Amino acid sequence: MSPDSLPADDPIVRTHISEADAAPLLVEVTRGDMVESVHRGIVSVVDAQGKDVLSLGDVERPTYPRSAIKPLQTLPVIESGAADAFNLSETEIALCCASHNGEPIHTERVIPWLARLGLGVDNLECGPQLPSSVAAAHALIKAGIEPTRAHNNCSGKHSGMLTTALHLGEPVKGYTEADHPVQTRLIDLIGEMGEMDLSRTARGVDGCGIPVFGAPLRGVAYAMARLAAPDGLSADRAAACRRIVKACANNPLMLSGTGAFNSVVLAETGQTCLLKGGAEGYYTAALPEKGLGVAIKVDDGASRASHAAVLAILIRLGVIDEEQKSRIEAACSSEVRNWAGSLVGFIRPTPAF
Amino acid sequence: MSPDSLPADDPIVRTHISEADAAPLLVEVTRGDMVESVHRGIVSVVDAQGKDVLSLGDVERPTYPRSAIKPLQTLPVIESGAADAFNLSETEIALCCASHNGEPIHTERVIPWLARLGLGVDNLECGPQLPSSVAAAHALIKAGIEPTRAHNNCSGKHSGMLTTALHLGEPVKGYTEADHPVQTRLIDLIGEMGEMDLSRTARGVDGCGIPVFGAPLRGVAYAMARLAAPDGLSADRAAACRRIVKACANNPLMLSGTGAFNSVVLAETGQTCLLKGGAEGYYTAALPEKGLGVAIKVDDGASRASHAAVLAILIRLGVIDEEQKSRIEAACSSEVRNWAGSLVGFIRPTPAF
Repeated sequence: MSPDSLPADDPIVRTHISEADAAPLLVEVTRGDMVESVHRGIVSVVDAQGKDVLSLGDVERPTYPRSAIKPLQTLPVIESGAADAFNLSETEIALCCASHNGEPIHTERVIPWLARLGLGVDNLECGPQLPSSVAAAHALIKAGIEPTRAHNNCSGKHSGMLTTALHLGEPVKGYTEADHPVQTRLIDLIGEMGEMDLSRTARGVDGCGIPVFGAPLRGVAYAMARLAAPDGLSADRAAACRRIVKACANNPLMLSGTGAFNSVVLAETGQTCLLKGGAEGYYTAALPEKGLGVAIKVDDGASRASHAAVLAILIRLGVIDEEQKSRIEAACSSEVRNWAGSLVGFIRPTPAF
Repeated sequence: MSPDSLPADDPIVRTHISEADAAPLLVEVTRGDMVESVHRGIVSVVDAQGKDVLSLGDVERPTYPRSAIKPLQTLPVIESGAADAFNLSETEIALCCASHNGEPIHTERVIPWLARLGLGVDNLECGPQLPSSVAAAHALIKAGIEPTRAHNNCSGKHSGMLTTALHLGEPVKGYTEADHPVQTRLIDLIGEMGEMDLSRTARGVDGCGIPVFGAPLRGVAYAMARLAAPDGLSADRAAACRRIVKACANNPLMLSGTGAFNSVVLAETGQTCLLKGGAEGYYTAALPEKGLGVAIKVDDGASRASHAAVLAILIRLGVIDEEQKSRIEAACSSEVRNWAGSLVGFIRPTPAF
């Protein structure tokens, strides 16, 4: 469904998912002798010239890329001059791209950064969130401390947005509103990077309060390919792209957290792969050495499936070798275990995928 | 796929889910203007004479019914005479059928029951589990108390199995093993109730350590229909069925927990519906007034989808009216909210479903 063909009078624009047009099976969950559950989804791999390298399912289907495009959303922080004006460290640039697990290593970097801007946690317009890190969450609960907005997995991205708004003299209050320049600038930029007309696509609100927009999966993959291989872009943007890839490669723990899939993969791949997950089964990857971009959306939104699917794609593309795969799987289990700890099944790519 | 046609040489028996044979769309998750994610699944509604009332998708597909058949698994506790020999209360019979949330109202009933058997928590062969109840889990974490096997959502079912084994003079140790009479008796009984040959179907291990077996969805629905309307069964079994339905209707909080979907629905329906959820997107219902059984399996295993799907079926069958639906939805939201608490989307049946 192209943006132009969206039925303007439909209160809820339907996705392309229909009885007759099911997405391919990507991942299966086994238990004992049988496949117990399956996950369908769509995959697009595109090069920086916009050529399709791999397309599974309807890659023109509009999707909300959610947090999987945070590396792209970090471009204005650098391009605007805000990062340099406020002396953002490489770690802080990585935090702009993060869906972090709310560990002290994250919150203890966000809070002084906000202080340097003359702002505080209350200026973040994301809601408070119990950390995804079990250890961090239990530590808060044990101490009787309520989570704050700094614990929200998006607090780094929001700090980046505040940095940009401050630097450009835009209002700090309301920076998450759909008509605030921070947000309109982002939609224009991502449309540009993916050569997509996003002016009339679906709109919604993300978990952290910023606008989300429907974007064809293929366009998101293309935008990631250009982030990976930015030679064709303006010199300023190309430099910003390279700075983002390097910042994430050098700070894998900032992107997600201790033992978390996204961080474990980044620690293995370094500058060969900027991987980024998003809610509802989304993943993107920018592959600088291959000059490719990847976008994956699992139909049902399950992260267990998007992890398995993106790992399979990285192996298929030769980004990760078998030894790295074993280390990643040892750290982030693809096994199904029962409460007593016994191995009872596997989460794995389907044979056809 | 009938049990007889299972390829014996396939190390993992595939489910019937294929590219060309996708299950129908049951539930959609919207965000703003767009459907963001969808869930497919299969639904069977059968009467006590084995007549199909509603079939969506391949209802002969083998599935693991998981905890959704706990009411059927409670039959031997009563039929064997164990329940009467050990004076099980109606609350304890309801706990046999429960996937409880590990609240004190559950654990404080399981522990004295085991003591009455001359046993303790260590005789439970399920692993320890942090309570699904957020309040109960936080209370344990705050107090620095590790969860025990009594907190496992299946501790009531396991206590029932121990009660039966003790009464019949069977070994207490190893009651979760596939060849223990407690387990072989259950597979025979459920095959009988659903008129299914389960002797050669897939086997696996459940989250709580007991064997699971592949069973066609339709057979599970039929077994639930006979639990609901047991007139055609032996007098002893019919009485046991009625006792189970009554115990669950009178103790809705035992089945799941405070504010939990399964318990909230049971509190509304009373003896008109024995609803029971299981892992990986399974739900069953026994509808005594209608003489029907229901079984639902969501392909991807998501509970947000199985809740929405079974609620839609109960409404379609006239078990729940609009007023009850509103009260259930007020207690167990079908809304998608962001971290700041704003309404951003809905989890709801697809228009065609």
